[in-house]
Amino acid sequence: MPQKATFYHAGCAVCVDAEQRFAHALDPADYAVEIVHLGERPDRIAEAEAAGVQSVPALVMEGRPYHINFGASLADVKGAA
Amino acid sequence: MPQKATFYHAGCAVCVDAEQRFAHALDPADYAVEIVHLGERPDRIAEAEAAGVQSVPALVMEGRPYHINFGASLADVKGAA
Repeated sequence: MPQKATFYHAGCAVCVDAEQRFAHALDPADYAVEIVHLGERPDRIAEAEAAGVQSVPALVMEGRPYHINFGASLADVKGAA
Repeated sequence: MPQKATFYHAGCAVCVDAEQRFAHALDPADYAVEIVHLGERPDRIAEAEAAGVQSVPALVMEGRPYHINFGASLADVKGAA
């Protein structure tokens, strides 16, 4: 049964590129990826923060944050939300 | 036929974690991942640099660099190599 992975982004160019590259490249037999646009879902910023996400784009897998390149800080996303 | 992806690292803890997480999570139907330890293969640092790698761990997919969290700068790896 696939594990859950959550891809957090904010619609930025770096985010979109990372989403196309990673969120869809993970083995679907192993991972069920949920895509969350924090600009549209500010109610989920706290959850991302709790998982250790400091910037977007980021993937959270098994509770650990993996920041992929740098699009925007979570502080900027909060400021814009 | 799977595309080539190259995972560059330098043996650091962040690198090992990212390797276990990403290098083996990519769909093997889509990606053939080569793992390169730049500390052991300093002759491949120039190739990583040419692909835009600035720090490790990083994955290069279709010629584009994706830095995953931050383990060490390429400058540090060069200094240590």
